Amino acid sequence: MNAPDTAAQVADALPALMGRLGAQAKAASAAMARATAAQKSEVLRDLAGMLRAHAGPLGAANARDLERARAGGLSGPMLDRLKLDAKTLETVALGCEQLAGMADVIGEIIGMRQQPSGIRVGQMRVPIGVFGMIYESRPNVTIEAASLAIKSGNACILRGGSEALESNTALAELVQRALAGAGLPAQAVQLVPTTDRQAVGLLIAMPEFVDVIIPRGGKGLIERISREARVPVIKHLDGNCHVYVDDPCDLEMAVTVADNAKTNKFSPCNAAESLLVARGVAPRFLPRIGAIYAAKAVQMRCDPEALALLQQALGGATGAGSDSALLQPATEQDWYEEYLAPVISVKVVGGLEEAIAHINTYGSHHTDAIVTRDHLHAQRFLREVDSASVMVNASTRFADGFEYGLGAEIGISTDKFHARGPVGIEGLTSLKYVVLGDGQVRA
Amino acid sequence: MNAPDTAAQVADALPALMGRLGAQAKAASAAMARATAAQKSEVLRDLAGMLRAHAGPLGAANARDLERARAGGLSGPMLDRLKLDAKTLETVALGCEQLAGMADVIGEIIGMRQQPSGIRVGQMRVPIGVFGMIYESRPNVTIEAASLAIKSGNACILRGGSEALESNTALAELVQRALAGAGLPAQAVQLVPTTDRQAVGLLIAMPEFVDVIIPRGGKGLIERISREARVPVIKHLDGNCHVYVDDPCDLEMAVTVADNAKTNKFSPCNAAESLLVARGVAPRFLPRIGAIYAAKAVQMRCDPEALALLQQALGGATGAGSDSALLQPATEQDWYEEYLAPVISVKVVGGLEEAIAHINTYGSHHTDAIVTRDHLHAQRFLREVDSASVMVNASTRFADGFEYGLGAEIGISTDKFHARGPVGIEGLTSLKYVVLGDGQVRA
Repeated sequence: MNAPDTAAQVADALPALMGRLGAQAKAASAAMARATAAQKSEVLRDLAGMLRAHAGPLGAANARDLERARAGGLSGPMLDRLKLDAKTLETVALGCEQLAGMADVIGEIIGMRQQPSGIRVGQMRVPIGVFGMIYESRPNVTIEAASLAIKSGNACILRGGSEALESNTALAELVQRALAGAGLPAQAVQLVPTTDRQAVGLLIAMPEFVDVIIPRGGKGLIERISREARVPVIKHLDGNCHVYVDDPCDLEMAVTVADNAKTNKFSPCNAAESLLVARGVAPRFLPRIGAIYAAKAVQMRCDPEALALLQQALGGATGAGSDSALLQPATEQDWYEEYLAPVISVKVVGGLEEAIAHINTYGSHHTDAIVTRDHLHAQRFLREVDSASVMVNASTRFADGFEYGLGAEIGISTDKFHARGPVGIEGLTSLKYVVLGDGQVRA
Repeated sequence: MNAPDTAAQVADALPALMGRLGAQAKAASAAMARATAAQKSEVLRDLAGMLRAHAGPLGAANARDLERARAGGLSGPMLDRLKLDAKTLETVALGCEQLAGMADVIGEIIGMRQQPSGIRVGQMRVPIGVFGMIYESRPNVTIEAASLAIKSGNACILRGGSEALESNTALAELVQRALAGAGLPAQAVQLVPTTDRQAVGLLIAMPEFVDVIIPRGGKGLIERISREARVPVIKHLDGNCHVYVDDPCDLEMAVTVADNAKTNKFSPCNAAESLLVARGVAPRFLPRIGAIYAAKAVQMRCDPEALALLQQALGGATGAGSDSALLQPATEQDWYEEYLAPVISVKVVGGLEEAIAHINTYGSHHTDAIVTRDHLHAQRFLREVDSASVMVNASTRFADGFEYGLGAEIGISTDKFHARGPVGIEGLTSLKYVVLGDGQVRA
């Protein structure tokens, strides 16, 4: 969205507008794929500087978004996410600088080996082309997505939540200025310049221009996009993460990990939603974690065995009997639930086998952890739990692109296809085969 | 398809039958993921033995298929592909033994590194789960797909061409016997036991059971499946492969490579369909390759410049003027064409830049080669040609799983997502994150 184009674009009929954005992105992606590592770093450093230098105008654009959103009745936490204050700006500026400093993976060649015919065959990492990103009203995501696109040599089309349009427009303008300043096409990062909801339907159905769609948002939105998209989707559905406390385990460690996985933060997708406890350690473990959860007002929805142990240990302190009581019997539905709240389901299991079966049946294939001292149990858990991240003796909260050393994260994939788990730069690339010969032909 | 089940299954309504196959595959896939390398090799070696030992009954089943197909009017090359003779059986048996001898990649852990928090993070290769394969009436593909499923620890549902049903049924029975003999679930490899065409539509729309669909066959079939599938598709569309003869190049090598890429075999997807020649070498190169193509009755569809050079060199020997003449002017459509026949399009280009632009515009992103002595040109070609395989000084005919050292090949992907180029065992796997800690929690 170059400044001189905007008026004309918005005046377009929507399909023509989206087609134009797509064609421009496709054209820009070829230049981005050729861009040098130095050029991409220059864009990212310049962008960081501009974000700081333009804090005033960016804040003013954001204030207008906030005012409209408030008038429209937007609620507390959603208003918070819409806010683009000095601290948020500094965080995204630092993120751009970190990306600028990271090694460039584009052009990397792996596995080059000579074959019996004499040809040498390897794989080269290249950008995927154009990605479309659909996200909530969080202006910081505009910069995160743009900076990942730039570093990975892709072009992108961004469709942020409608409440953030003025903020996003101001941010995208800076990104385009930084791109042009380094001799790269401004249209490598384009914002959909309208809040018309039909734009999303068009964006996900242009296989001729868009190689992959990355949706962020509620489960309903992601399911609808997966169903209707005509291009691949890197999708992040729910995180029903488990901590399984094995027998034998270090009880102290189990308490620390189960506490952190649930209570460090309630809203992230990598927070634990279900606690499984081996029968052999349940009488010693449950009273200790139960007391901690109770003190932090975390409601425990329990199978009969866990309920009995916890009631005995915690007794009246939990307001037993009332609807708001901290101890509740679990329903079948509870084992499927992603609460994202101070609630956890708790179940006593016979041991490793039952824990793995439970996780593979009720889990969401996101992140699951075992706390154990048994090496054979650890190995089986890692191998047999069918999740994007499997952990031994660590909190599920570590499932995150930064914690995994990816440098940045554009989302967490619960798919098995292409990218699985936290998706960083590599998830936005593909590997093509490279063959080097000196005149070989096939017999 | 266990023998006792078959009658009951065929009597089912089709959706119930396909749902049952799906659920059985899903259940079997968990056991296959746990199977040891030794078990999988045992199945493959036993299967190879059985294929040889049962050559008689397999031949008889195939003879019935052939007879019905002949009566139904099936044509020469299609009858050839349907044939399951001793030589074909020996080839697939050897393929099973080769797979048995290959290293097992399941459970492999890569990139394990300690992060600042102290956790160690790596990725483990695991089977993708269940794949569905849809293919032509070629019984050998039944064994190729089954053996790849076994080696990769996946379950599969096979839907072969209807003409091959008796052959495939006999083959699948042997596969299931070999699986059961090694203590693995027979239902890890199931054949759709009906020729009802609606079975395909159902197979590609069971995301709850099937993780990926691999179609083989005509472009129309693959496009329809890609459009209608509700799961990811590893798709192989057309191979409009180019040889670009650069200036400077080794003329002898250029002639050998351009000859082999076009005339080694006409029908494979990795045969060259278009020849681009740098203007600087065209007057010396085109007469030489033209004489070879003419001698092999390969029709050349040329741009005006190539046509003039070739007419001057070959003259009347090409039957100039007639519709069947070996020299023809190219139409715009010719640059897009995958002939799979003794026909090639020929164009003189200004140099590297124009060659890359032409390939990225008209090619099918399958396999493209440059013949050059210029190192900088080679580097740019490798980086900028947007194809699954890019080659320097080698024949496009090498784009093949065996030639690339993958050990086996289930198809060639022209997608950028997940698997790209020849797809072997690794294309049927996914990488999950493995996190090892000693009690770390998130701050």
